Amino acid sequence: MWIETKTEVEKASRTRASFSRRVLNGLLLCIGDMEHLDKYMKDKSFVLQLVVCGLRAVTRVILANNPLSGGLILAALYWASPWQGLLGTLGVLASTLTAVITGQDSAEVAGGLHGFNGMLVSLLMGEFSSAGDWYWWLLLPVFLGSATCVFLFSGLSSFLDRWDLPAAVFPFNIIIILYLLCTGPEHPYFPHHSVKPPGALEPNATELIALQVIRGIPLGVGQIFACGDLGPSLLILGAVFLYSPLLAIHALLGSAVGTLTGLSMAVRHESLYSGLSGFNGALGCMTVGGLFFTFSLWTHLFAIASAFFSAYADIALSNLMGIVGLPASSWAATLVATLMLLLTGSLAAYRIPIGQVRAPERNLRSHSQWEAGNTEEGESTDV
Amino acid sequence: MWIETKTEVEKASRTRASFSRRVLNGLLLCIGDMEHLDKYMKDKSFVLQLVVCGLRAVTRVILANNPLSGGLILAALYWASPWQGLLGTLGVLASTLTAVITGQDSAEVAGGLHGFNGMLVSLLMGEFSSAGDWYWWLLLPVFLGSATCVFLFSGLSSFLDRWDLPAAVFPFNIIIILYLLCTGPEHPYFPHHSVKPPGALEPNATELIALQVIRGIPLGVGQIFACGDLGPSLLILGAVFLYSPLLAIHALLGSAVGTLTGLSMAVRHESLYSGLSGFNGALGCMTVGGLFFTFSLWTHLFAIASAFFSAYADIALSNLMGIVGLPASSWAATLVATLMLLLTGSLAAYRIPIGQVRAPERNLRSHSQWEAGNTEEGESTDV
Amino acid sequence: MWIETKTEVEKASRTRASFSRRVLNGLLLCIGDMEHLDKYMKDKSFVLQLVVCGLRAVTRVILANNPLSGGLILAALYWASPWQGLLGTLGVLASTLTAVITGQDSAEVAGGLHGFNGMLVSLLMGEFSSAGDWYWWLLLPVFLGSATCVFLFSGLSSFLDRWDLPAAVFPFNIIIILYLLCTGPEHPYFPHHSVKPPGALEPNATELIALQVIRGIPLGVGQIFACGDLGPSLLILGAVFLYSPLLAIHALLGSAVGTLTGLSMAVRHESLYSGLSGFNGALGCMTVGGLFFTFSLWTHLFAIASAFFSAYADIALSNLMGIVGLPASSWAATLVATLMLLLTGSLAAYRIPIGQVRAPERNLRSHSQWEAGNTEEGESTDV
Repeated sequence: MWIETKTEVEKASRTRASFSRRVLNGLLLCIGDMEHLDKYMKDKSFVLQLVVCGLRAVTRVILANNPLSGGLILAALYWASPWQGLLGTLGVLASTLTAVITGQDSAEVAGGLHGFNGMLVSLLMGEFSSAGDWYWWLLLPVFLGSATCVFLFSGLSSFLDRWDLPAAVFPFNIIIILYLLCTGPEHPYFPHHSVKPPGALEPNATELIALQVIRGIPLGVGQIFACGDLGPSLLILGAVFLYSPLLAIHALLGSAVGTLTGLSMAVRHESLYSGLSGFNGALGCMTVGGLFFTFSLWTHLFAIASAFFSAYADIALSNLMGIVGLPASSWAATLVATLMLLLTGSLAAYRIPIGQVRAPERNLRSHSQWEAGNTEEGESTDV
Repeated sequence: MWIETKTEVEKASRTRASFSRRVLNGLLLCIGDMEHLDKYMKDKSFVLQLVVCGLRAVTRVILANNPLSGGLILAALYWASPWQGLLGTLGVLASTLTAVITGQDSAEVAGGLHGFNGMLVSLLMGEFSSAGDWYWWLLLPVFLGSATCVFLFSGLSSFLDRWDLPAAVFPFNIIIILYLLCTGPEHPYFPHHSVKPPGALEPNATELIALQVIRGIPLGVGQIFACGDLGPSLLILGAVFLYSPLLAIHALLGSAVGTLTGLSMAVRHESLYSGLSGFNGALGCMTVGGLFFTFSLWTHLFAIASAFFSAYADIALSNLMGIVGLPASSWAATLVATLMLLLTGSLAAYRIPIGQVRAPERNLRSHSQWEAGNTEEGESTDV
Repeated sequence: MWIETKTEVEKASRTRASFSRRVLNGLLLCIGDMEHLDKYMKDKSFVLQLVVCGLRAVTRVILANNPLSGGLILAALYWASPWQGLLGTLGVLASTLTAVITGQDSAEVAGGLHGFNGMLVSLLMGEFSSAGDWYWWLLLPVFLGSATCVFLFSGLSSFLDRWDLPAAVFPFNIIIILYLLCTGPEHPYFPHHSVKPPGALEPNATELIALQVIRGIPLGVGQIFACGDLGPSLLILGAVFLYSPLLAIHALLGSAVGTLTGLSMAVRHESLYSGLSGFNGALGCMTVGGLFFTFSLWTHLFAIASAFFSAYADIALSNLMGIVGLPASSWAATLVATLMLLLTGSLAAYRIPIGQVRAPERNLRSHSQWEAGNTEEGESTDV
């Protein structure tokens, strides 16, 4: 009799345990790369698949890969400006559909790799346009530019593949520069703002406000999506935190390093306040600190070095390109990240092959499993 | 008795058939790559070989490879301007001889691969010179520039060989920029015209003349040789048609796309009228539509996309380089073509290895033979 | 008895012979790459090893590799300006130590490969600074810039390794441009001189003084270290002569070619007098004439061609970068040298693999031994 009772008690406790475990599992399912979703999506309709891979693409911009984070980021963008949100959505769809039509690798498309450059191009086209919001003609260059990103991504990937390097946001950086060069501040159809270099002298400079500078640090994370409002920027940071806390910390750290760099080079106050000084540092820091390299103290130090280098290079490139009224976008961070991936020496030991990059926390686990038992290598890569 | 008569009749008809077949064969011998000529030339004198490979080099500029077309193009250039014709001839000879002296691969030299960059450099040096025709001192930079192209072609080929990419007209583009930078508008020995960017605002702009714009389309083909007259441009187009009708159609189509692009970006009227808006589109279209890819509907669509991309990139680069008074030459088309060759996805399936590129019509035949019987692959490559 | 006398005489003569041989050997030990030193240094203290590899790094700037030459060059720099000497020393130390800390290949570090870019960056930062000598804040960018060179050197080496190309002074050229772009002529912390392009017109030009032009030729060798005084420049030339007479001759020859090139393009007199016209030619000539290619008549002719090309390219790039107030440093020579290493044809036959490059005289000997007996290849590479 008591045996049965015991089993019932056990059952109940097991039920409770399994319930809390299920909640925990439910939560765990929402963080990281959410790879289980891919299996679940396989037999779903094309539109649903497109939505998921579009949301993944949205997070790829900030080096994450999680559809829920994507939803949060998209919400943040619509919150900051509905027109910008619309442009971003169209950019992702245009480039993802172009990738499908031109027959790109379906796993890459599903992973959102062909959408994030198009999204950035669209957002920046909207940001630089001086024709105001809801200027519908802008959709023409948005569609064309986003579609062209797929060509550049595919071609550059073939080129960089020899060194196991990603094409990253090179396509976006190239297309936005070409677009801004094609049109001009006085263009009859697509006029745009001219960019002021960060090193430009300010005739009547006021004193620096410390609080504004500190406010620029989270804004630096938002500026990755050309978003300059505090609320949406924090939401974007939260979306990154959902994917990987480690990545979110490095984003903030990198942005802080970028702001510090801006201070040391006495850039315009506007650059510091708006977060534009910080976003290259953030990207440079995120790339090294956990994403393409297994997290460790060494990697962390290199991530900070990478943030400094990205931020200084950004000031240099912004000053150069600002001469002809062009923005340096994320050229600096992309180039420095590429350099870091090529590095030999102690950092190279932590390098993760491009095809096996997951959320930093997963990378860490995989790595420790590799170290624990190199014999079960086949298994550990499956985990 | 009647049997003999029959055989005589048969003989006569056979003779007639063989005559018309011989005429047809004679015509067929003149189109395409004329590879049979190479066997015939083997035991001929060095001068004759030099002439043939020089004429091949002339056609290489416009992506063709046929000595007769080369003769026609050269005639067109002499027709447009004897001084330009002379410069072009000297450029081809200087670079081909440099290639022979520096011991470049003899098959490449015979195919005209080392001459076309030198020719372009010479033509453009003459075109940009503001010292007038028959300024004999110009022969010095013409010789030096053409000779240097061989070094660049050889070095870049080694570099790009890893991706099976051609050096194309990169050497020309590099040398002409270096030359124009070395000298300047006010240079005491080699003065040259400054280039006006296509996006420059026109103070007193007149209305666009539709006929002039349409006239700019065939001029776009001539502008590949820096030739801005209608008659010679049509002759050049005819020369391309002799090599391959498909290539000629794509040249015109690309030039039309380029003109359309120029209209959509509201470039200066002068750019549209002179054909300068069209020639990058033409080159971009020709590369993809049949030459480096087997012709098909897909390839054709990609060729149009490539023409658009080349033309837009040309406007962007022209605006950028025009700031410092430099021309964008064919940088846009060369970069876009290189990108197209790197592309993965559906286009890559049609890619022809660089070493096996022939006239589009031949590429098409080889391809269908491959598809018909993959077992006879060895034979089909011989055809 | 006489036998003993004879042996004594023999002994004495042998002693004398062995003495002079020992002196000769002692001298021979000081020239060339001094590889025997590496074995001797193995069990020495870290500081002593650092000194030797630092001195090697100093000579790497001018394509040599000999600690004694390094000492002479350092003396020349301190002679020209103690502040510049100090900056150079700190640059070498900063980048070498960074290489040690970031775990770069120890053989490369010992060979001085990680120090010479840092040294050049430091010297040029000092040279361009308009804050005067002994401006101690400059040590900050000197340290940071030198350290960053290690990252660039390591990353670029991985990239260029596919073609067996050296990273050469690309890192220096990149870092100095980034530094000058970050700061500016009016920068509050790190102001610097703006650079005047060599093609700039001189309003009241005086007649060219032949003696000054000739004096510019040895100065061109000194300008490789940003040193514009005759005495130190001659001492630097002497240091190169100690490493390899052949290299010293090519340095002078290349500088002369560069000066000739400057004359032919009518550059500013100041460029010719200061040796700035010559140093790219010198570097271009040294690379090909004996260092990366076995010395021969062919190589010698190609070295002269390389000097001409480097010098012309330098004028072009200086004119381009001078528009935005930047120097072309040694971009021209580095790019041309890289091109020469990629060349196919007759020059490629003389190419020495990067890992086996020694002093030109040694390269020559190894090569003739290879030719004499290809069977003893294993032995000859050891010699």
